[in-house]
Amino acid sequence: MIRLSDVQDARDRIAGRVHVTPVVTATLLGERMPGAPRLFIKCENFQKTGSFKSRGALNKIDRLTDEERARGVVTVSAGNHAQGVAWAARAAGVRATVVMPEAASRAKVEASRGYGAEVVLHGKSSIEALARARELEAERGFVFVHPFDDPLVAAGAGSVALELHEQMQAIGEQLDVVVIPIGGGGLIGGMATAFAELQPGLRVYGVEPEGAASMRGSLDAGQPIKMTCVNTIADGLGAPAAGALAFEVVKRSVRDVIVIPDDAIARGVRELLVYTKLLAEPSGAACVGALLIGAVPDVAGKNVGVVLSGGNVDLGTLAKLMS
Amino acid sequence: MIRLSDVQDARDRIAGRVHVTPVVTATLLGERMPGAPRLFIKCENFQKTGSFKSRGALNKIDRLTDEERARGVVTVSAGNHAQGVAWAARAAGVRATVVMPEAASRAKVEASRGYGAEVVLHGKSSIEALARARELEAERGFVFVHPFDDPLVAAGAGSVALELHEQMQAIGEQLDVVVIPIGGGGLIGGMATAFAELQPGLRVYGVEPEGAASMRGSLDAGQPIKMTCVNTIADGLGAPAAGALAFEVVKRSVRDVIVIPDDAIARGVRELLVYTKLLAEPSGAACVGALLIGAVPDVAGKNVGVVLSGGNVDLGTLAKLMS
Repeated sequence: MIRLSDVQDARDRIAGRVHVTPVVTATLLGERMPGAPRLFIKCENFQKTGSFKSRGALNKIDRLTDEERARGVVTVSAGNHAQGVAWAARAAGVRATVVMPEAASRAKVEASRGYGAEVVLHGKSSIEALARARELEAERGFVFVHPFDDPLVAAGAGSVALELHEQMQAIGEQLDVVVIPIGGGGLIGGMATAFAELQPGLRVYGVEPEGAASMRGSLDAGQPIKMTCVNTIADGLGAPAAGALAFEVVKRSVRDVIVIPDDAIARGVRELLVYTKLLAEPSGAACVGALLIGAVPDVAGKNVGVVLSGGNVDLGTLAKLMS
Repeated sequence: MIRLSDVQDARDRIAGRVHVTPVVTATLLGERMPGAPRLFIKCENFQKTGSFKSRGALNKIDRLTDEERARGVVTVSAGNHAQGVAWAARAAGVRATVVMPEAASRAKVEASRGYGAEVVLHGKSSIEALARARELEAERGFVFVHPFDDPLVAAGAGSVALELHEQMQAIGEQLDVVVIPIGGGGLIGGMATAFAELQPGLRVYGVEPEGAASMRGSLDAGQPIKMTCVNTIADGLGAPAAGALAFEVVKRSVRDVIVIPDDAIARGVRELLVYTKLLAEPSGAACVGALLIGAVPDVAGKNVGVVLSGGNVDLGTLAKLMS
C-alpha cells in the first residue's frame, strides 16, 4: 500500500521536471451535463509526453540503483506509459525497451522512439505484449517498470491530486466530487490515496469503458481479476487486469466505479474540443463522457473535478471520432 | 488612429469580463520549425466565445449611449465577431443582429444564436453580407459595429498585446518576434499599436492566407484595397478589405506581412493539435503555419510569440483538415 506521504515524496522528487498542469473551468461544457455541475478540468494532456504517465515513470526510474540503471528498463504499454518511461529513462541516461501491441497508436509508437526507447511491437493485445515484456525481463535482465501496479508509479500519478487540491484552494474553491479514469488503476490508486487524507469528504468516482471494465469486475468478484479480452477505443484504459494495489485503494476510498460505453467516450472527445478547445485522447475524455450521459450520481450544482489524463491520439483516429 | 492609452483604457473597461488567457510554451512544436524558435502561444481560443473578438465587441458595446443601446446593433461576420457581438450585446441588454454569409460555419451560426443574436444568413461572401448589414443599419436604425475598422474594436483587440507583454515579463522572458494573423486588421492594428510603445524593438509580422491577402495587396498598392473575391479555409481571415486604421498601423509598425497557402494553415491546425493539444481554427493556426514552413524571417533561437486567435471550427471541417 501507499500513503499520502509517498505521494508527497513523489511530488518533491519530480518537481521542476514535470509540468504543474493547469486546471481549466469549463462553464459551457458543464451546462451541457445533466445537473449542470461546475466543471474543473485537470489538464494532464499538457503534461510532459502528453499524459500523466510521465509522473510515475520519472518517480520510479529516478530511484533505481546504479546496478538497476546499468541493466536498463523494460515495460509494456499501449503507449502513454511507454512514452513516459522512454522520456524518464532518457533523462536518467537509462536504456529503455517498451513492448507495445501491434495495433498500438502510430503516434504513440513514433513518440516513444522519438524519446529514444527501443520499441518492440508484439501481439494482438496488451495481454500478449505483457507476456513478451516479462520474457525480455527474464532473458535480458531488464528492470520491469509496471505500468500501474507499482507503489512508486502510483505515488507519482497521485501527485496529480496534490496539485489539483492546491490549485482549487488557490482559487478559493473546494471540489465536491472528483472523477478519475481507470486503466489498471495507477492514477486512481495514487489520487484516491492522497484525497482520502487531504479531503476525507470528497466523493471519488472511477470510470471504465464497457469493453475493459477490469476494476468493476474485480469489485464484483471481490478480488482482482484478469480479463482474457479487451475492446475499447480508449487504448489507455485497456489494461486487462486491475492492479492489486489499486484494488485495495478503490475498495476503501472510492465511492463507485462507473462503466460507460465507447460512444460516450467519443462524445467526450468531441465536446471537449468544441466547448473547451482541449484535445483529449479517448482515455482522457472518459470522465467527461460519463458526466455528459449523466452516469455520475449527485452532481447537480456541485464542484466536479475531472482528470483529462492525456491527449495522445492519432489524427486519423481523431477524424473518425469527429463523425 | 489609436494609441497605447486607448488600448489600456479598453483593457481596464473589459477587465474581469473577459479571460486573461494563458501563454503556453511549446518546445516540441518550436523544434519542428526551421530555426527552432522558442515558441510562446497566446491562447485566445480559450477566450470568452472562443476567440479574441469578445474583447473588441465588449469594449465597443459597453460604451454605447443609452440612445444607441435602445436602437440595437448590427454587424457582419464570418462568425467570430458575430459571436463576440452577440455575447457582449446580451451582457449589455442590447438587441443584436448579425449578418453572416450563407456558407458560414454552422458552429458559429448556432453559437451566435445561442448568445441571443438574430442571425441573418445572406450572400455568397462577406462582401454581400456586408452590403446587407449596411442596408439593415439604414432601414432599421441599428448601430453598425464594424468587425475591425473601428478604434474601439481595435483597441479592445489590442489588449491581447498588453497581457502577452506582462505575461512574458512575469516569467522573466522577452519576445524578439510576434506573429499576428490578419483578416481586416483589427487585431494587428491594436496589438502593433500597443507594442510600438511598450517594446519598440520588437519585430511584428502579420500573416494572411494567399486567397485573402488584402493587407499585402494594400501595402503593395500604397492604399487600402477592396477585393472582389476571397478564397481560403481560414474563414476568420477572409475579410475582403484592409481596414484604413489597420493599414496605417501596419505601414508604420509592422515589419512585414507574410502570405501563406492554405495547406500551411491546415498543417498549423494539425501540428497544434498533435504537439500542444490545443484546438485552433484555421485562422488561429495561420501564424504557426507560417513558422512551420519557414516563412517568418530570422527566428533561429529567438523568442517568438504567436497569437492563437480562435478555436471555433466545425467538427466536420476539422475532420477534413486531419487528412
